[in-house]
Amino acid sequence: MQQLESQLQRMRMPKSTQPAILVIGGAEDKVHGREILQTFFRRAGGTNARLAIIPSASREPTVIGSRYQRIFEDMGAEEIRLLDIRDRYQAENQDLLEYLEICTGVFMTGGDQLRLCGLLADTPLMEKVRQRVHQSEITIAGTSAGAAVMGHHMIAGGGSGEFPNRSLVDITMGLGIIPEVIVDQHFYHRNRMARLISAISEHPERLAIGIDEDTCALFEKNGWLEVMGKGTVTIIDPKEMSYTNQPKIGHNDPISIHNLRVHVLCHGDRYHFQKRSLFAVES
Amino acid sequence: MQQLESQLQRMRMPKSTQPAILVIGGAEDKVHGREILQTFFRRAGGTNARLAIIPSASREPTVIGSRYQRIFEDMGAEEIRLLDIRDRYQAENQDLLEYLEICTGVFMTGGDQLRLCGLLADTPLMEKVRQRVHQSEITIAGTSAGAAVMGHHMIAGGGSGEFPNRSLVDITMGLGIIPEVIVDQHFYHRNRMARLISAISEHPERLAIGIDEDTCALFEKNGWLEVMGKGTVTIIDPKEMSYTNQPKIGHNDPISIHNLRVHVLCHGDRYHFQKRSLFAVES
Repeated sequence: MQQLESQLQRMRMPKSTQPAILVIGGAEDKVHGREILQTFFRRAGGTNARLAIIPSASREPTVIGSRYQRIFEDMGAEEIRLLDIRDRYQAENQDLLEYLEICTGVFMTGGDQLRLCGLLADTPLMEKVRQRVHQSEITIAGTSAGAAVMGHHMIAGGGSGEFPNRSLVDITMGLGIIPEVIVDQHFYHRNRMARLISAISEHPERLAIGIDEDTCALFEKNGWLEVMGKGTVTIIDPKEMSYTNQPKIGHNDPISIHNLRVHVLCHGDRYHFQKRSLFAVES
Repeated sequence: MQQLESQLQRMRMPKSTQPAILVIGGAEDKVHGREILQTFFRRAGGTNARLAIIPSASREPTVIGSRYQRIFEDMGAEEIRLLDIRDRYQAENQDLLEYLEICTGVFMTGGDQLRLCGLLADTPLMEKVRQRVHQSEITIAGTSAGAAVMGHHMIAGGGSGEFPNRSLVDITMGLGIIPEVIVDQHFYHRNRMARLISAISEHPERLAIGIDEDTCALFEKNGWLEVMGKGTVTIIDPKEMSYTNQPKIGHNDPISIHNLRVHVLCHGDRYHFQKRSLFAVES
């Protein structure tokens, strides 16, 4: 029933050009249809886009940054700057801040999310980006490490092949673009369900989102999330959680957590991440 | 609140000697505390136990069967028979059927669940076992492959490292000891969440249960399940499922499935698998 509702809503909507937040699970198509990158490009203004590429998560920022630069050049962006920030003081540069004031889209590449946060967290540059995103003035996308940093809390690392336990996940502070979520990426490809469950058991006030490779959770300013791409987006909603032993157990003990609501969504599925419902109507 | 309830109920109960069904996730402790095997032994009658060990899942049935035989001999079982069935006609043997009529516990080892079902499904021996289990006259345990066969539907094989999709899981018929469940074992150790979600999307009338190594879901005849051992038991309850694309998609397409209720349970946690609730009181 809500599927029909959802389909009707989609049919009513032309392809939006509104600013949005694109959280990409890594390894997005860069060669063929480039659906996800095309969507970022369109949301950031299309041929009027002034883009900032932030490759700072990577240890090869020039290589990875240039690759995205060429892709968006091919698409016809009006202006593209590679913000190759390698020191925190660069994130105070007046010239960069002025560009961020007029730019229409920011793209954060993959690499190491700890590196990215270490360079950008609590800098004037990041403050400017976050402020403009929260005012829905610009579109932002992050892939892989660039996706991991989206929440207030961030999964910095972890493992797989174990039951949920506290040692399975390292949680630090993210960049707070979408504070209410905890994101994991390369989700089923790297078998990260247990670590995401471990993470959400520690922060059950958040919403856990696992995103597959070549897959994107597109967050609209109206509270809806829509799935794009080849794989799935898994939502773990602990709102109705009735119990967890998490605070009381040792580092390697099994985590018990009751009454999680889980949705596995794929291309075209929509979820209201503010109302935490597949039923919610557009606000 | 229901945790307190649950703990109180446990405290009220002496260590039960009632017949039960033990579904073990594989690699259970055979050397130290042997908590799970001890529980099987106690539930099967303790020093009065007359046990039947079925090693037919294994290609080395004598080796694996003898190992369990020694363990239960050490514990002091009154009688132990190794039912080394290698051909279906053996499962009609009158002598074996007579033993099953007087035995108090059946233990199915690990190996290959397809081999086990191929040898035992729809045989007079299995019919006898199932009938006595359903009348709560005997205790039965299965580990690994022996756990996989418990449901009406059985996961015969599958993969990991992919989003949920139909090709990720092979489903065949199990032995129907607990018809309403689909069991997966070695659960987080082998990263089987995606395949269990794939399985339950195909049979949403069932209850999916993923059991870790050295961990046991102990099913009581009163409808309760209790978790024992080192790891977790993950329940995926699709009762409130509002949508799945499963019947309509291609073999490798991502599965969409909305509104699963998931519980991760560990040692001592209890779940009413008939009422599908952590709140239910004993009936």
